[in-house]
This record gives sequence, C-alpha cells and structure tokens, in this order.
Amino acid sequence: MNKIVIQKYGGSSVSNIEKIKKIAQKIVQKAKEGYQLVIVVSAMGKSTDELIKMAKDITINPREREVDMLLSTGEQISIALLTMAIHSLDWEAISFTGRQAGIMTNAAHTKAKVTNIHHEKIKNALKKGNIVIVAGFQGMNLNGDITTLGRGGSDTTAIALAAQLKADLCEIYTDVDGVYNADPHIVKNASRIPEISYDEMAELAILGAKVMHYRAIDLARNYRVKIVVKSSFEAGEGTMIKEVDTMLEKVIVRGVTQEKNVGKIVAEGVPDIPGIAYKLFKALAEKEIIVDMIIQSSHRKEINDIAFTVAMNDFDKAGKITKKFIKEVKAQGIITDSEVAKVSIVGAGITSDPLVASRMFGALSKEGINIDMISTSGIRISCLINAGNIEKAVKAIHKEFGLERVGV
Amino acid sequence: MNKIVIQKYGGSSVSNIEKIKKIAQKIVQKAKEGYQLVIVVSAMGKSTDELIKMAKDITINPREREVDMLLSTGEQISIALLTMAIHSLDWEAISFTGRQAGIMTNAAHTKAKVTNIHHEKIKNALKKGNIVIVAGFQGMNLNGDITTLGRGGSDTTAIALAAQLKADLCEIYTDVDGVYNADPHIVKNASRIPEISYDEMAELAILGAKVMHYRAIDLARNYRVKIVVKSSFEAGEGTMIKEVDTMLEKVIVRGVTQEKNVGKIVAEGVPDIPGIAYKLFKALAEKEIIVDMIIQSSHRKEINDIAFTVAMNDFDKAGKITKKFIKEVKAQGIITDSEVAKVSIVGAGITSDPLVASRMFGALSKEGINIDMISTSGIRISCLINAGNIEKAVKAIHKEFGLERVGV
Repeated sequence: MNKIVIQKYGGSSVSNIEKIKKIAQKIVQKAKEGYQLVIVVSAMGKSTDELIKMAKDITINPREREVDMLLSTGEQISIALLTMAIHSLDWEAISFTGRQAGIMTNAAHTKAKVTNIHHEKIKNALKKGNIVIVAGFQGMNLNGDITTLGRGGSDTTAIALAAQLKADLCEIYTDVDGVYNADPHIVKNASRIPEISYDEMAELAILGAKVMHYRAIDLARNYRVKIVVKSSFEAGEGTMIKEVDTMLEKVIVRGVTQEKNVGKIVAEGVPDIPGIAYKLFKALAEKEIIVDMIIQSSHRKEINDIAFTVAMNDFDKAGKITKKFIKEVKAQGIITDSEVAKVSIVGAGITSDPLVASRMFGALSKEGINIDMISTSGIRISCLINAGNIEKAVKAIHKEFGLERVGV
Repeated sequence: MNKIVIQKYGGSSVSNIEKIKKIAQKIVQKAKEGYQLVIVVSAMGKSTDELIKMAKDITINPREREVDMLLSTGEQISIALLTMAIHSLDWEAISFTGRQAGIMTNAAHTKAKVTNIHHEKIKNALKKGNIVIVAGFQGMNLNGDITTLGRGGSDTTAIALAAQLKADLCEIYTDVDGVYNADPHIVKNASRIPEISYDEMAELAILGAKVMHYRAIDLARNYRVKIVVKSSFEAGEGTMIKEVDTMLEKVIVRGVTQEKNVGKIVAEGVPDIPGIAYKLFKALAEKEIIVDMIIQSSHRKEINDIAFTVAMNDFDKAGKITKKFIKEVKAQGIITDSEVAKVSIVGAGITSDPLVASRMFGALSKEGINIDMISTSGIRISCLINAGNIEKAVKAIHKEFGLERVGV
C-alpha cells in the first residue's frame, strides 16, 4: 500500500472559497504523487467565533452539550466544501464528521479527550481511492452526543488519526511557515527552526508559542507521530518535530519565548507550619487553577512568603482563594501583580551546559531587567520580569545565544 | 402520561436571535400547560440559501452527499440555539440532530424519504421532563451518511414524528396565520379557512399553496395526524387539517388557487395510432417530468393534437423530448407557450354539485377570459388560461363562490 499522510489545515487556511479551492489543488497534487491522504480541517476563519457570539447573545452561560452541537457545524461546513472542491478537480474524496470518522471521546463536552478511533470507515474509503476529509475538533461520546475537543482540537484530531492509522507523516498546515526561535513580531531576525524534538516543542507550546497546542504535541510524542509544521500557501521546508535521537544536531538553546498572559500572587507572612503551602495549592487545584512558578522564601524565622504565578484568566479567582487562605492561616497579607511577563529559553542541551542559565540572567542584567522569579525544567529556564521589559528581554536573550544564525 | 404535541417552526420563525428567544418563550409556556413537547426546527432564515451559494461558488454541480453534509448544519445550528434559549428560561430541553432523533431514511441524498424512526432516545428524553428539539429536514441512511429530505422536509419530519410518537396534535408554525381560501396578495378579502380536509389541503398544496408541502400532507393523511397551521408570532386559531368526516360543515368550494409556474406544450398533427400518446408520456416520465393537464383533441380524421402542461423548470426539457417524439412519429409540429397560468377551485363538495363547474366557467367568461384547457379530480377543477388574466380570474371566482364570507 501507498504511504499514508495526514494533513491538517487550520481555520485561516480555509477562511474563504478561494482558499478552499487552492487547498484542494495542493491536496490533489499530493494525491497524484501516490499518497493515501486523510485531511483534517478546522472551521472556516472566524466562523467559530461567530457561532459563539450567537450563543452568547442568547445566554451568557450556554450548556456545554449544546455548545458542542453548535460549534461542530463549523467543521462540518468546511469538510463538505473542501470535498466538493476536490471533486471539481476530478478526484475522488469523501467527507466524514467526527462521528463518521469513528472518533470516540469521553463525555467532557467542550474539552473532550479522544478515547478511541474506529477507523474502519476511513480505511475502506482510502482503499477505494478516496481522499478522506475529516472534520477536526469533534467526536462522539458513548451516548451518541457530539463532543468537541477544545483548544488545539483539530491538531489533536490529526495526530490521533496519524497514530491510529500508523501514518508516515502528519503535516500541520498553518499561516506561518514553521516554528520560529523567537516571536518574529518582536525579534526581526528570528529564524525558522528546521527540526525540533517533541519535548522542546511541547515546552514552547506551554510557554505560549501559538503554532501547535501542547496537548497535540504530547499525543504525538506518546505515539511517535512524525510531524511537520508548514505554511498553507507558501513553499518551504517548515519545521520537523520528531524524536530527539533522530535529529541531525543537538543545539543548546532552541528558542526563546514570552508569555504576557500571566499574573503573580504573593501570600505574605505565612506561618512556617508543615503542610501549609500544600493547603493553599490544594485549594487552587480544586478549582482547576494551574499554578506555574512557585517560590517560597523566608525573611524571618517561622514566617515565609509564598509567591506563585497563574494564567491571567485564573488571576481573580486565584486571588480570592489566596485571600481566604490568608485569613484562615492568619498570614499577614496578599500582593497581586498583573504587570508581569515570563521569558523562557527552551533547548534539549540546557541542563548539560551550566553556563546557559548564567548567560540568560547576564543578558537580562545587562539590559537592567530585574528577575522576579525563576523556574526551570529539564529543557527550559523561565524568568518572571516586569511586563514592560518583555520585548527588550526577548531580543537580548535571542542575541546572547546567537539564535539569529540557526537555520540560515 | 401527558399529551404529546409536535410543534414545527419554519426558517422565518427562527431567522434571528430575538425570534428564537420569543419562540422559546412560547414553547416553555406550552410545556407549563403540561404537554410533552417535541419541537422540529428549520434552518435560520436564509442560511440554507447562503450555504447553497457557497457550494455553487465551488462547483456548479456539487455531489449530493456533500450537499447534504453541508445543508444539514443549518438545522443543527437552530436546534442548539433554541435549546440554549429554553435553558435560559429555566426549563429542561435537549437538542437532537436527525440521526440522534433516530430518523432513518433511504439513500436518496437531497430528497431522502423517511423509512423509519427509532424513537427511543426521544421517548427517554421526554420521560425525563425534557422538551426535545429535533433538527428538521434531515436524517441518516443505513450507511451512516447524513441525508436531507428535500422540499417540505421539516414539515415531513414533524408529521413523521407525530405519526411515530402517536402525538395528539402536530402544530405547524409559519409566517401566515393559517390557510386562506385565496392568495391574500390577489384577493383583498380572502379569508382564513378554519378547517380543511387532508384531501383538500393536499390539492391546494399541489396547486401552488405554499403553506405546506404536498408530501407532508400526504404523510399526515396516511397516519391520520391531526395538524393545525398557525402563525408563529400572532395569536389566532389557525387552520385545522383533519379527516373530512370529523369536520363541522362541508363546504362546496373550500378555496381558489393559482399557479403561474406552468408551461403548455402541444404536439400537433400526431398520427392516430394506438399507444402513440403513451410513447410520449413514457419518454417524459422516464426523465421524471410530471405532466399535469393533458388534452387530446382531434381536428381531422387520423390526426390528433396532444396538449399538456408541465412545471416551468421542466419546460425546456419537456420541449426537447416532445420535439424528438414529433420527429420519430412524423407528427406535424410543436407549439410551446410559457405565458399560461392555472386557476383552480378545491372543495370536497365539488363533484356532488354539477353546477359548480359551470359557475366557475361562467365567472371566467363574464370577465372575457378564454379557457385553454380544463382538468378535474374528485375535489378539484382547474382551468388553464392566459397568464395575464390570472389575478382577474382568481378574484372573479372567489366572488362567484362567496368565499369572502367563509370563516368570518
């Protein structure tokens, strides 16, 4: 059998009829090269936003089952139109909703997880010579209800299909021509990363790179799905995401990234009793608030400050929980700061070179930027700084590690 | 158990968010009266037309499976939004696509016929106290493909559900407040018909009354589904459609109706050979052209003229077939005339009163209108006249039978 390739096209790639026709030409061209193709498509352009607006005009708090019923129409429109466009190029194609593609999920509406894919229908359609066009972002639960997969949903559909169908490659088409080692809006000479490991890409995604969602990368890593991120309409090699041991060269710092959507909360003067920090973070976790950086610092005996960061949309909720905690444990007070930002470097070689951290801190210091908090993982170092300094910080670090030369 | 009522709302009743909210209020009001409700909804306003336009921008000849995939999203949006609106009024409701409602159809995409309804899901949802909101116009074939039911599809969904669920009543909500005994755009004092038999309503539908599609009425007649046609937003009794023997009074002429979308074709000088007319009408039937009025007239020995009428969208096709026939049988020629119209009267008492036909012809004659062709059924008399005289004809007949008094 011919190689199976999964292609995923995001909303901006199918935002109008002309683009859908162009995408169809690209797809048929690839089919003529002899590949078996499964195409995953998102909703057209801003159509999901328009559907959400209609729902919000009815009620500020629509039930999630009905939200899924509503939003899943967006992808259904895309698959029908793209399939028609392929037919008009005299090639066989068939569209499948999430249900028809056999994408089974759990019952968590608006953020369902793919539990299984009954892929017989897709396999049969491929065998008959069809290009198979699958609605991204959606599936069906055991109750027969339509579910949607939440953020990164269409990428997840593509990766899950690639894993299940044992595809040779999963191509993610988007409006940029690959993954960059810094935000090109900030760093003019940011450069495309030719290849990157799953771990590095996952860190970049967590840290705010918008190209792919963490969840889809994590799934790809688990099933070792080879991914390439490419531009829908421009030529280019894109960025290959794969296992680190298959990569040509290991770079120390793969990229630098920033996240402004973050706020800091400090619980001041917390009594130093065992388990007291656990009490706070358990209360936050129970409300599904993800805490990012945590620093516990002691200024005086038997008194600690506990500082942590959360995403801005959890900021107010986390503040309230912290205030309640402070009252309960008789701590001294709370400081909240939304004017912070996080700058991070990511690279598989970071832990193997002790100089990396000090070079990063030095680059910030040279620009007169104070570091408020620091956190690290095996392949990442993040610094919390004043939000006003974030662009300066990204530029300085990008230069410090000579990232403008990578991939040139 | 409480009485089951099916309500159907057409596209004009849910064409924007405000209307959807109003409809939701109506529905909840009815639920509070203790009914078990199943609501069938069409796509919002002109949204189906917009989807068709997108498809046509891609290819002039989209495949029907994909057209169904595309168009079925319209109703899916409506049911989600209407269900949200009911939730916001603190009442339980759940939306079902055609598939989820168990509406099984044959494989004829864009004009599928309902073959069965697996109504367990609806029954269970009703038992739990839900208002059940079903997407009209759509179903699923045995292959798991989405199908649409074609013209009159949402009415058909409502009637089929009413039949299957043994509903006490099926309410068809539309933008008029009932069935009128003449087109109010033509006859100023046309009046609403309070009750009408299935047969009469079916004839009116065939003859061009737009309120309900023939097919839905035919289904209702077969299963004796009691129907009332009402306005979505105005108060009023509407028109009750039911079995003739349950009706309060039998009127001779129930209504007058006109159809301009008709063309006449005459095959002139056809040799008078047995089976020769059959040859022509078989050729037309094979192309699925429905022939309405037929007159065969003989001017000379062994030569006949065969005149018939077809709907205008079949007019060119029928003309070509007739030309071919004329050549084959060595007839003399063809006359086509698209400037014709059909005026009809409908009523269960028509055949029981021999004066009815002559009164109709007389009314036309008094206005100086020539009758080109005549056809009759048990409860209908139709005359083909010049299109330019149609409004005058409708008014004259309406007056002749005193229809302005009915229902006042």
